[in-house]
Amino acid sequence: MSERKKIAVINGPNINILGKREPDVYGTVTWDKIEEKLKGMGQDLEIELVFYQSNHEGNIVDFIQEQMGDIDGVVINPAAFTKAGYSILDALTAIGLPYVEVHLSNIFARGGWHAESIFTPKAVGLICGFQEDGYSLGVRALFSFLTKNICE
Amino acid sequence: MSERKKIAVINGPNINILGKREPDVYGTVTWDKIEEKLKGMGQDLEIELVFYQSNHEGNIVDFIQEQMGDIDGVVINPAAFTKAGYSILDALTAIGLPYVEVHLSNIFARGGWHAESIFTPKAVGLICGFQEDGYSLGVRALFSFLTKNICE
Amino acid sequence: MSERKKIAVINGPNINILGKREPDVYGTVTWDKIEEKLKGMGQDLEIELVFYQSNHEGNIVDFIQEQMGDIDGVVINPAAFTKAGYSILDALTAIGLPYVEVHLSNIFARGGWHAESIFTPKAVGLICGFQEDGYSLGVRALFSFLTKNICE
Amino acid sequence: MSERKKIAVINGPNINILGKREPDVYGTVTWDKIEEKLKGMGQDLEIELVFYQSNHEGNIVDFIQEQMGDIDGVVINPAAFTKAGYSILDALTAIGLPYVEVHLSNIFARGGWHAESIFTPKAVGLICGFQEDGYSLGVRALFSFLTKNICE
Amino acid sequence: MSERKKIAVINGPNINILGKREPDVYGTVTWDKIEEKLKGMGQDLEIELVFYQSNHEGNIVDFIQEQMGDIDGVVINPAAFTKAGYSILDALTAIGLPYVEVHLSNIFARGGWHAESIFTPKAVGLICGFQEDGYSLGVRALFSFLTKNICE
Amino acid sequence: MSERKKIAVINGPNINILGKREPDVYGTVTWDKIEEKLKGMGQDLEIELVFYQSNHEGNIVDFIQEQMGDIDGVVINPAAFTKAGYSILDALTAIGLPYVEVHLSNIFARGGWHAESIFTPKAVGLICGFQEDGYSLGVRALFSFLTKNICE
Amino acid sequence: MSERKKIAVINGPNINILGKREPDVYGTVTWDKIEEKLKGMGQDLEIELVFYQSNHEGNIVDFIQEQMGDIDGVVINPAAFTKAGYSILDALTAIGLPYVEVHLSNIFARGGWHAESIFTPKAVGLICGFQEDGYSLGVRALFSFLTKNICE
Amino acid sequence: MSERKKIAVINGPNINILGKREPDVYGTVTWDKIEEKLKGMGQDLEIELVFYQSNHEGNIVDFIQEQMGDIDGVVINPAAFTKAGYSILDALTAIGLPYVEVHLSNIFARGGWHAESIFTPKAVGLICGFQEDGYSLGVRALFSFLTKNICE
Amino acid sequence: MSERKKIAVINGPNINILGKREPDVYGTVTWDKIEEKLKGMGQDLEIELVFYQSNHEGNIVDFIQEQMGDIDGVVINPAAFTKAGYSILDALTAIGLPYVEVHLSNIFARGGWHAESIFTPKAVGLICGFQEDGYSLGVRALFSFLTKNICE
Amino acid sequence: MSERKKIAVINGPNINILGKREPDVYGTVTWDKIEEKLKGMGQDLEIELVFYQSNHEGNIVDFIQEQMGDIDGVVINPAAFTKAGYSILDALTAIGLPYVEVHLSNIFARGGWHAESIFTPKAVGLICGFQEDGYSLGVRALFSFLTKNICE
Amino acid sequence: MSERKKIAVINGPNINILGKREPDVYGTVTWDKIEEKLKGMGQDLEIELVFYQSNHEGNIVDFIQEQMGDIDGVVINPAAFTKAGYSILDALTAIGLPYVEVHLSNIFARGGWHAESIFTPKAVGLICGFQEDGYSLGVRALFSFLTKNICE
Amino acid sequence: MSERKKIAVINGPNINILGKREPDVYGTVTWDKIEEKLKGMGQDLEIELVFYQSNHEGNIVDFIQEQMGDIDGVVINPAAFTKAGYSILDALTAIGLPYVEVHLSNIFARGGWHAESIFTPKAVGLICGFQEDGYSLGVRALFSFLTKNICE
Repeated sequence: MSERKKIAVINGPNINILGKREPDVYGTVTWDKIEEKLKGMGQDLEIELVFYQSNHEGNIVDFIQEQMGDIDGVVINPAAFTKAGYSILDALTAIGLPYVEVHLSNIFARGGWHAESIFTPKAVGLICGFQEDGYSLGVRALFSFLTKNICE
Repeated sequence: MSERKKIAVINGPNINILGKREPDVYGTVTWDKIEEKLKGMGQDLEIELVFYQSNHEGNIVDFIQEQMGDIDGVVINPAAFTKAGYSILDALTAIGLPYVEVHLSNIFARGGWHAESIFTPKAVGLICGFQEDGYSLGVRALFSFLTKNICE
Repeated sequence: MSERKKIAVINGPNINILGKREPDVYGTVTWDKIEEKLKGMGQDLEIELVFYQSNHEGNIVDFIQEQMGDIDGVVINPAAFTKAGYSILDALTAIGLPYVEVHLSNIFARGGWHAESIFTPKAVGLICGFQEDGYSLGVRALFSFLTKNICE
Repeated sequence: MSERKKIAVINGPNINILGKREPDVYGTVTWDKIEEKLKGMGQDLEIELVFYQSNHEGNIVDFIQEQMGDIDGVVINPAAFTKAGYSILDALTAIGLPYVEVHLSNIFARGGWHAESIFTPKAVGLICGFQEDGYSLGVRALFSFLTKNICE
Repeated sequence: MSERKKIAVINGPNINILGKREPDVYGTVTWDKIEEKLKGMGQDLEIELVFYQSNHEGNIVDFIQEQMGDIDGVVINPAAFTKAGYSILDALTAIGLPYVEVHLSNIFARGGWHAESIFTPKAVGLICGFQEDGYSLGVRALFSFLTKNICE
Repeated sequence: MSERKKIAVINGPNINILGKREPDVYGTVTWDKIEEKLKGMGQDLEIELVFYQSNHEGNIVDFIQEQMGDIDGVVINPAAFTKAGYSILDALTAIGLPYVEVHLSNIFARGGWHAESIFTPKAVGLICGFQEDGYSLGVRALFSFLTKNICE
Repeated sequence: MSERKKIAVINGPNINILGKREPDVYGTVTWDKIEEKLKGMGQDLEIELVFYQSNHEGNIVDFIQEQMGDIDGVVINPAAFTKAGYSILDALTAIGLPYVEVHLSNIFARGGWHAESIFTPKAVGLICGFQEDGYSLGVRALFSFLTKNICE
Repeated sequence: MSERKKIAVINGPNINILGKREPDVYGTVTWDKIEEKLKGMGQDLEIELVFYQSNHEGNIVDFIQEQMGDIDGVVINPAAFTKAGYSILDALTAIGLPYVEVHLSNIFARGGWHAESIFTPKAVGLICGFQEDGYSLGVRALFSFLTKNICE
Repeated sequence: MSERKKIAVINGPNINILGKREPDVYGTVTWDKIEEKLKGMGQDLEIELVFYQSNHEGNIVDFIQEQMGDIDGVVINPAAFTKAGYSILDALTAIGLPYVEVHLSNIFARGGWHAESIFTPKAVGLICGFQEDGYSLGVRALFSFLTKNICE
Repeated sequence: MSERKKIAVINGPNINILGKREPDVYGTVTWDKIEEKLKGMGQDLEIELVFYQSNHEGNIVDFIQEQMGDIDGVVINPAAFTKAGYSILDALTAIGLPYVEVHLSNIFARGGWHAESIFTPKAVGLICGFQEDGYSLGVRALFSFLTKNICE
Repeated sequence: MSERKKIAVINGPNINILGKREPDVYGTVTWDKIEEKLKGMGQDLEIELVFYQSNHEGNIVDFIQEQMGDIDGVVINPAAFTKAGYSILDALTAIGLPYVEVHLSNIFARGGWHAESIFTPKAVGLICGFQEDGYSLGVRALFSFLTKNICE
Repeated sequence: MSERKKIAVINGPNINILGKREPDVYGTVTWDKIEEKLKGMGQDLEIELVFYQSNHEGNIVDFIQEQMGDIDGVVINPAAFTKAGYSILDALTAIGLPYVEVHLSNIFARGGWHAESIFTPKAVGLICGFQEDGYSLGVRALFSFLTKNICE
């Protein structure tokens, strides 16, 4: 893994309607605004960012397989795939991609299935509860991890 | 929410082959016959009905997002998505659509994963065990709910 | 089972003070109004309806035993006997009476003991969450069941 | 405790319609026939037998309190009070009456709540699975216990 | 809620034979003596006390319904109804009566079902382990609660 | 199954030292005395009795296989094989031998592993808590079962 | 244990800032006011009261060891040590000091770890839910216990 | 079911990148090599083999529905759909297709969600732990099953 | 591990009466026929096969210890030792013998203790549900494993 | 909450010997270096930072009480107090201080008690797995939270 | 119990091949060497030692019964009988022999069934994790126990 | 680790009042006597012993940190810190100090929280049930461990 890092930011289902849904839990910021902000940050850190969202678990698996070899790591908000999206988890670990798990809300405060993530044990780390800030914190954390670690 | 109510009737996987599968559990009525009967009922109640079925969880999420703003509520038989279709549940609650959960069989009599629905706690109500009658009871119940309640 | 069906509508404890209790959960409709409405429906469907309510578990068992042979099925809201009224469940199954279980509230939304019904696994079906509408939906569902099924 | 022993044989709910209910589980013998047979046995063993059945948990508690001081022990088939009839259990243990628990069916073969008796841990012993024979075995066992033991 | 408070002291099954049962657990004081002492205390505090005991769960529900509107609160020792007397709990919460739960013994020291009270989560408070003193402590605590709180 | 019934009475480990062990739990009667008494009873009932005890699980399996075809049923006290003697249970059910399970003590009063029998769900019935009387009650119960039932 | 009883009133962590914290749960009364009131009550009952509070579990253990021999009993509100303060529990039971457990709030209404007290099973009794009244009720209950019981 | 059997070999997500992922767990053999070997075996056994793989749960359901009537059975490696692919399980059982479940690794050695298959209870049988050999063993086992059994 | 592989085929209790027991579960094939077929297969694969069956757990442990050094692996059907035969499991793992676990029936379809094998986590692999075919599949799988792997 | 924010960074036990302990889990960076880096960041963000570490749970409670009114929020690594430091949690929530929970390692990857934090449900958010980066991410996240939210 | 103590050192299955099995867990010392060392220790302490090992649970039960009356206590390493050797446990407790439980490895570090001993609750004490030293520590501990205690 | 070994013997809360507390569980020996005996043993084994006891969890953590580098291992009786003293456990494992866990009583015989030690899985070994002998056995075991093992 040489010079410029490439990080994929992946979002699970219903993140595409962010800002139009449950504003008391997720706020009113739309994804476009978050992406714009992340792009600015990417330029500052001199990393390449690629974005992907899908309501289809299989599409996310396909996307990860396609990116295999191109990307250095993943910042993922599995959203509603947090508890049962085993094929995404399997794709990430099969390929051996380091990933940071991000959630908009504090999933442990919400409890129930929100708090039962299958992704966390294999993740580099977890960031949750900071709304849209979670993504920029996640990119920052993964960037630091990638530049410090030779091999996972 | 004005005059004429619009209700989506959504079916999960394998309902499209109803009547050809496990007849001892689900009977021999096909979905076409049920839909026909529901349309008649819709005319009587003066409500608009829209039907959707898919074997793909992501498609149902897409459908719900597309209907957002158009429909007043959902009658849903999650079928095999009953236990792990979190993205559908998330779409319904994110958009704030009132929904009635319907199952052909008495899922509590079958037990196991059949009886563990992630949809029920957030539903307006649950109707199960009445075979194809469940859909008409569900539409009737949701219609009554929509006309009685200003906001959920 | 011949011509005119006879259905008993049975209510467990404290339903007699409906409308005077927990209005945020159960609404303000009294039982008298519900019964009146059901009677009208009974006339439409040409079925005979008999009503019974008691705060005493034993009385409900006695009532079911007395009706044995006379009634074709039961619509029951076990209310506070939902979790531990084994003698009522035993009476229904011992006699082999088909019954539909009804709850005013969505017992799965309330959670805890409200959601743990001993009646559901042996019921024809379950209807919950539709307030007073549950009774008319239940009678309708049981009537359809009785006229479609020769023997359970 | 002197000469002639007095034993109460107590039955819980729905035993009064025995022979008319679930014949595949409980057989077709009615309670009258069982009682008759037990009376003959009582004469052989020279013990006094008193019989009581009720569908009302409270009535059984009242009966046990009334018999307090008169009877030496109890043979009880709690039936549908097996899992939650705490007040009957409390009456028996409060008064310190030795009792033998009897069930017509093998409650462990039926499983579920049938197999979860609150009475067994404090009973002299348990007899289940032998249909109507259970009562005569129970009386015989209790009689032997009472004549062998000075105090429990 | 005006001047003179009216409090119902309700006892569950087998409390009527107190002093004749399990003296190592409950002591030898009879209920009459406890009631007499409570009456004296009632006069001191200038509150009206009404007493009720029954071995029948349904009777206690009936009693609470009859007292609805007349009494300001309840001191209840559910005794053997502690774990499964849902209809009594339902009556108290349906009517919205503040109640203090009292037990003669330390139910947590006895363990098992004795320690699993369905009444505690909705109670104003719990007092257990102080034998007959529990009732006077309970009346005192409820009186203080009623005079301090406008509405629960 | 013709005229004279043949019943095997089988005992698990350490029953051979009965009367020399834990007398507070099992009493002081030795197995020889119990066997003698059972033989007398066998003559009265005109049944053939065969006795077997072993501390070796495998020996009991061998014995059951050898008796296959000769005996009509088994009265078994699995003793310390109650919780994990699967090969004995397997032999009994594989051959299809009806068996009555007997325990000297009330295994539910002792609790823990004593109360977790793998034999009960497949047994004709269970008798426990009546010390040495359990065997004669068990033989009597099995004899009644064998003469009443053509096939299990 | 002679004439004048000496009782220690012990408070766990954060009770020292009472009145400044979570007023919706604990009210606005400060500890100084409660102590003042208890002192008045101590004079009335002619008992000696000693007060102790610490945010340090070890300090409370030290305090109990120092008081060993001097005090007759303890009224303790373990507060945040309720679930894991084993060394305090160990000190109390090692020395054999009778203690009454008090909580300001109804810990069973709050649920979670608030409701899981390690102190209750060994306590004389438990009083919870009555805010600051709990302390005076606790002292009164312990005083009654100490004067009635020669030895625990 | 006549002469030549037709068997579908279905693979879940990420099997398409076999040999490029987690080689320490799954080895370095690619799927193409396995398929080639299976085709040779199919010719030897004179059975028709059809292969399908998808990262999309819904696609596998569609495929099974399309094959309905054409194939005699299925050898399936559900991979990451092992624990939550209810719609695939539902399709197989709804159509009544006998299937053999295969896993490359010993899922019970890996533990966790790997070992919790929803497919096994309804499968003809399970084969796991033998890497790529599992497929040929599975086809062989299913072929034997299909030729021995008239109907499941 | 040199030229010719030697494999022990070990059977647990009651397999010796196969074909005479529970034919609906295990079929009517006797062990002699299975052994005969396996011997033919052994000649084809040029492996040495040694067979052992016992109803005694200890005998199987002794046998494994005696074979230590002589055999290359084990195909074992633990039968009724599946859940508690720890000493056999311990012998296999202590010696480091690779073993394949075989069951005639689908133990996960039968459920309960049948499905709780202590052997599977340490096995090379598991084959179950294919009746007598399981043994030949097991030998084939183990042979492939032994010839492919230098050391486990 | 005015201009300049003041944030306390609190560390639980054994963080003071960081860099000298379990380097494979926590790396070799000492706390002094981390603190130095955080101070620089504090100057950039124009926030005031105060640092505290103790091996004594009570000291941390005292510190939080002393800071009450002075600080706007807390970044806390509870370390070995993660699972049972209820008095610290109680101090934070009693005072109503927003806090961010930080862990050096991915506590969910370590599992067991490491993964059972009592602090998370009430935290603003959680950051774990990023070694020493966690602190700067935590301060950044809390700063953003404090400047965006008027009141929690 | 007079002068010279006699202690039986009993080993469960596979201890006879110690030193040839799992050397990374149990070391390379053989049992002969351990026995030799224990004999020397026995001479020093002036106690009589008798040794027994078997792979057969029943043999160990027989041995204990034969030693009944001769030995004063037992040092036992149940090995693979740790979790399910109920008949050995039953023999020890039936006869009332004090025993010390020894394990070569730290069974709690290994976890799973290794850590679930049925012997510990009734043992004098437990010693585990010290490899072959466990036996000499166990003999020493039992000797001290036997000379200090008149009766258990 | 050179010639003379240095071992710290650490005791948790309330061990300082040993002999004055729960004599039926812990005997009447005081700690001074035990320490004296251990010192003699230390001289015999030519090891240096250092003793520490505290009722404060934090003090024990401080002590272990201070001894870091000086001591070779620890014999610890965590007493009431057995179940929740995570910071002590963390200190021991962070520094990598081998430790032997000792308990005066058989914690598994006492059950409940006494039997749930967080220290055992990471300990060299466990010794419990031998009263004061536990310490000398522990020192002996640790000494043997330290002289046999180069590195843990």
